[in-house]
Amino acid sequence: MGNVIEVGVLGATGMVGQQFIRLLEGHPTLKLTWVGASDRSAGKKYHEACDWRLDGAMPAMVRDLVVQECKPAAGAPPVMFSATDASVATEIEQAFAKAGHWIISNSRNHRMDEDVPLLVPEINADHLRLIPVQQANRGWKGGILTNPNCSTVGLTMGLAPLRQFGIRRVIVTTMQAVSGAGYPGVPSMDILGNVVPYIGGEEEKMQIETQKILGTMGESSITDLPAKVSAHCNRVGVIDGHTVAVSVQLDLNPGLEAVKEAYRAFQGRPQELNLPSAPAVPVVLTEEANRPQPRRDGMAGNGMTVTVGRLRTCEVFDYKFVALVHNTIRGAAGAAILNAELLLAEGYLQA
Amino acid sequence: MGNVIEVGVLGATGMVGQQFIRLLEGHPTLKLTWVGASDRSAGKKYHEACDWRLDGAMPAMVRDLVVQECKPAAGAPPVMFSATDASVATEIEQAFAKAGHWIISNSRNHRMDEDVPLLVPEINADHLRLIPVQQANRGWKGGILTNPNCSTVGLTMGLAPLRQFGIRRVIVTTMQAVSGAGYPGVPSMDILGNVVPYIGGEEEKMQIETQKILGTMGESSITDLPAKVSAHCNRVGVIDGHTVAVSVQLDLNPGLEAVKEAYRAFQGRPQELNLPSAPAVPVVLTEEANRPQPRRDGMAGNGMTVTVGRLRTCEVFDYKFVALVHNTIRGAAGAAILNAELLLAEGYLQA
Amino acid sequence: MGNVIEVGVLGATGMVGQQFIRLLEGHPTLKLTWVGASDRSAGKKYHEACDWRLDGAMPAMVRDLVVQECKPAAGAPPVMFSATDASVATEIEQAFAKAGHWIISNSRNHRMDEDVPLLVPEINADHLRLIPVQQANRGWKGGILTNPNCSTVGLTMGLAPLRQFGIRRVIVTTMQAVSGAGYPGVPSMDILGNVVPYIGGEEEKMQIETQKILGTMGESSITDLPAKVSAHCNRVGVIDGHTVAVSVQLDLNPGLEAVKEAYRAFQGRPQELNLPSAPAVPVVLTEEANRPQPRRDGMAGNGMTVTVGRLRTCEVFDYKFVALVHNTIRGAAGAAILNAELLLAEGYLQA
Amino acid sequence: MGNVIEVGVLGATGMVGQQFIRLLEGHPTLKLTWVGASDRSAGKKYHEACDWRLDGAMPAMVRDLVVQECKPAAGAPPVMFSATDASVATEIEQAFAKAGHWIISNSRNHRMDEDVPLLVPEINADHLRLIPVQQANRGWKGGILTNPNCSTVGLTMGLAPLRQFGIRRVIVTTMQAVSGAGYPGVPSMDILGNVVPYIGGEEEKMQIETQKILGTMGESSITDLPAKVSAHCNRVGVIDGHTVAVSVQLDLNPGLEAVKEAYRAFQGRPQELNLPSAPAVPVVLTEEANRPQPRRDGMAGNGMTVTVGRLRTCEVFDYKFVALVHNTIRGAAGAAILNAELLLAEGYLQA
Repeated sequence: MGNVIEVGVLGATGMVGQQFIRLLEGHPTLKLTWVGASDRSAGKKYHEACDWRLDGAMPAMVRDLVVQECKPAAGAPPVMFSATDASVATEIEQAFAKAGHWIISNSRNHRMDEDVPLLVPEINADHLRLIPVQQANRGWKGGILTNPNCSTVGLTMGLAPLRQFGIRRVIVTTMQAVSGAGYPGVPSMDILGNVVPYIGGEEEKMQIETQKILGTMGESSITDLPAKVSAHCNRVGVIDGHTVAVSVQLDLNPGLEAVKEAYRAFQGRPQELNLPSAPAVPVVLTEEANRPQPRRDGMAGNGMTVTVGRLRTCEVFDYKFVALVHNTIRGAAGAAILNAELLLAEGYLQA
Repeated sequence: MGNVIEVGVLGATGMVGQQFIRLLEGHPTLKLTWVGASDRSAGKKYHEACDWRLDGAMPAMVRDLVVQECKPAAGAPPVMFSATDASVATEIEQAFAKAGHWIISNSRNHRMDEDVPLLVPEINADHLRLIPVQQANRGWKGGILTNPNCSTVGLTMGLAPLRQFGIRRVIVTTMQAVSGAGYPGVPSMDILGNVVPYIGGEEEKMQIETQKILGTMGESSITDLPAKVSAHCNRVGVIDGHTVAVSVQLDLNPGLEAVKEAYRAFQGRPQELNLPSAPAVPVVLTEEANRPQPRRDGMAGNGMTVTVGRLRTCEVFDYKFVALVHNTIRGAAGAAILNAELLLAEGYLQA
Repeated sequence: MGNVIEVGVLGATGMVGQQFIRLLEGHPTLKLTWVGASDRSAGKKYHEACDWRLDGAMPAMVRDLVVQECKPAAGAPPVMFSATDASVATEIEQAFAKAGHWIISNSRNHRMDEDVPLLVPEINADHLRLIPVQQANRGWKGGILTNPNCSTVGLTMGLAPLRQFGIRRVIVTTMQAVSGAGYPGVPSMDILGNVVPYIGGEEEKMQIETQKILGTMGESSITDLPAKVSAHCNRVGVIDGHTVAVSVQLDLNPGLEAVKEAYRAFQGRPQELNLPSAPAVPVVLTEEANRPQPRRDGMAGNGMTVTVGRLRTCEVFDYKFVALVHNTIRGAAGAAILNAELLLAEGYLQA
Repeated sequence: MGNVIEVGVLGATGMVGQQFIRLLEGHPTLKLTWVGASDRSAGKKYHEACDWRLDGAMPAMVRDLVVQECKPAAGAPPVMFSATDASVATEIEQAFAKAGHWIISNSRNHRMDEDVPLLVPEINADHLRLIPVQQANRGWKGGILTNPNCSTVGLTMGLAPLRQFGIRRVIVTTMQAVSGAGYPGVPSMDILGNVVPYIGGEEEKMQIETQKILGTMGESSITDLPAKVSAHCNRVGVIDGHTVAVSVQLDLNPGLEAVKEAYRAFQGRPQELNLPSAPAVPVVLTEEANRPQPRRDGMAGNGMTVTVGRLRTCEVFDYKFVALVHNTIRGAAGAAILNAELLLAEGYLQA
């Protein structure tokens, strides 16, 4: 991975696009050279087209990039991070993949396609083997990789160390940060001193994505995890960091100490490959009584570590715990960047 | 209930004590004439002893009451609302009950005693039949009545309409307001823009209290509901109003429409008796997609109505829903006042 | 004022329109019979056209009113509260006034017109004498009355008791609630755990409106108060209630005790006339060290009383103090309703 | 400054003590080797004695340090950062100074002593010349240096570029973060969705400290700036970052462009000396309409840069602006560390 590869961002002026740019600043192997956005931004310099909303200043390397239309064209780099809106993502992403680009997408449009990997690299790096299937199916030279919905990442990372014991039933309640809704997103009149017990489409996404992510890669397709999953999704007045409270029933109950040990031992392919964005500890188990908390634990591992706490026996199922994921890093832009690093390291893409 | 009865408040200067006072202002049948607090307050006028922390001004009727020691004495009224701290509640409440007073307690100390009713009057008004058992057991002329922990009220009221279908398993996650922790209570450094996934002792209380409240009154004792209950308790940055997300498995699944009808039809003994603090609709079922919300629905029925929403099938159990309870009214002081009204109306206490 | 007069609301589906409706519910003399909104709402029943965002349920009396276009027509009542958007308010309000209606407007469009009263009835009820001038100038049988910007009401009510000492210079910093920006208004990403030190146009409005409101009514025009006013306007994470911190230099410094006495003695024309929405005490002076606070004092006088506290000498000017106004009641819909009540009581309008 | 000097922290388990430790982690020239706290902590390892409340984990270098009593003793390093409580700071700090240590204090106790420098190194590094006076007066080999109250730092840094034009009158309103009150500090019941317009002692501190900091160093004493300063101090629901809104009258009004240029040109002694904690730009002037904001700008310059925005003419005085200071870094622990670096660089202390 010594070589540097050029990358672009589709939908670069939106909130997730801005997060891609912030996280790519100073990246050792992925060099941002191209930004695409809607037609009305195209042709302007990025700093003219974009109202920067993240903390701190706009990275210097992107200020003077000229915004391009989101269409394949000469000069577009081989790897494209997609933060395009769901209303246009299908068309844009397919056009680039057809033209030989690799689309590393945070959009939901292709996540559930049978031949598209829905990756959490610590959990299912082997799902990359769908790529040749996808290319054959669709006649593409490039391809599309996706990462899950932000809250799904917290749930699946929290469940991953338990996979060895057989996950049978899961009931999860989320308390999700407002940054997950983008900008302007959640009105302050709705969330100040309040809880909103509904996020459109979120529960369904968590339920089905979890089954695919934790599914088994076969010859040329994935068999979903045959677990039942039920989600309650809530919005709370937190800026960054989704908290998920999980009760889980296992096929095999190994005892609390063995379960804790499974969490402590958990490592994945990104750690083996020492990928640039991979945290040393992908899931950290805390024993402190009142953790994890979004404000205090969200930035663990530069926002790439999921923190699990309050692991204990469940009066109804086998175990219950709380997991915390930084929704705009590990749950969105950081997830996609880790996917790109994996793709590169696994040799799908020659730098 | 035409006659007026005099009442007192034990622990009158604390947050729950203040709520008792606010709710008793203008009460048609319960007249506040006595306030008790710790030794260092005794002898002062209430407005000198108390740092009033509720919204609005201190009620005029209490300003000049002289604070008494929390000991039975001449002039103490027959009914005492107890908001005393758990560290002293056992001794104080028993002393008054022994002296012939009725203790309507919000403290946790006696809730799980076998001969003490733990009442939610819409659910288990018949548990009052423990009173003669208690008096016989303890040789008291008075007695002790308790109301549940605030979050338990939201859960049990949300479950009550389902009791007819047999409640077998319950997994509940709470998002609880800071007012539940009193004053100074939760430090702002802990909760601003944050979630704290732990409230000491709360999960255990919800689990066992729910089984007792929904239990069956026999000849002289209660048989707990044989349902398993698992709770995840969280603190969020809300002033008033606990939100609980519930998944429930039933013995008999009657279909979603029949379940909704059960919620709409639900009424209890306080509604039959037309008690002064009884809301017309004890559990209101909302069909709006994003409700209930603490800030918008907390004051339904003057804070005495529990709002249930998002009632739908659960992918793991049978149904799931969200319930909202105003924790300092229906979940604390208002609950106790309703208990006193019930005691009076059922003839245990002659006004 | 024994008779009841029919009223309508222009812009009835927006946030201010909803507040008008809530405050008119149960009003003793103003009966809501008509609601107007944009063309796309016209013809629908109000509950179909309106997404009710205030706490509690939509008042029953308005649910089935058919929404009208905002054009004068048969059946439109004589008094119209205007909550129309500034982009259309000029045209709509003038059309109704020309057609003989009384427009009681919360919009900013006509506030600074020389022949339009900008009323805070406790301060400048005599500015109503502009009405005949306005009618003569414009050839109208009806007329337009306005109330100030929400933060201006807090400032001018806080200054009013000092008018007798000569107000020379004022420096004011506001901390304003999000409800002042309507819905969806302030994005939660901007204000959670944050302060935004800018509200477009607000400082200019406070500065010039204050001079007009505190100005002197002459034969046929107002002479502005010749005081200099400088405003710093900030948005904070509060739902309702604008806090203003004020330093003021006077022509005559009467001593702190005399100033306090001026606050305590302050009464206005609405109190003399005993108008239905007039609070008994229009400006209450609190001596508590840490008050007023928006959450605890906002609803004083049903949201119509301005609370002033921390009155003390200023190291640079003469005095400094903090004033709190409920921005959507005394600062908007409630202000307009009080204006209508005044108009009626002063005999401009025969019920 | 190539050599490393050993330092200790007095009051190391409190919030400011923890901030010292976090900021000293990885410091190039100041090496933390000693921690002192109250008697009941002494003898324990730091991680046993301290409930770590800052974001992220406790730095490894401090975990196993044995907590000492706050008394001069063999092994105590030459430089001591003091975060001791005001109730004990006078005695502790003087004992160490007498024993030859340098006390770099964040406590308020000695700030206003005539022979103790109250430093903001960009503004008044020359006040270090009080040190020999102090040593002579008190017969000490060591000495005491102080930094101002957190809100004062924001105000004085915001005013410093204007000093050349003569500062005559200042009216300032603050909106202060809860972290300034330590832990548990501000109860959430007081500040969620609220503003508290009072912070005990804060206004007086801002007013007098500002005059000393901006004062002139003479032969052996400081002549206070003869400006009048009036402060309104408020607490808002922000975690970190104090916002101050300032109106200022100058002796000489140079025109807005010249004032802006003065801000852009502002540099201080720490920048000349290239001190490790000195930000490249001590006061950054932003032209964005709605900045600075605590959440977005607080960490500018690693929390050591003060951001000034909304610089404009004032309708009453000459100019008005908003300044933002990270209260626990530039306003507390970071300020003290910069003071130590200055002391070292100016040769008062040989490493």
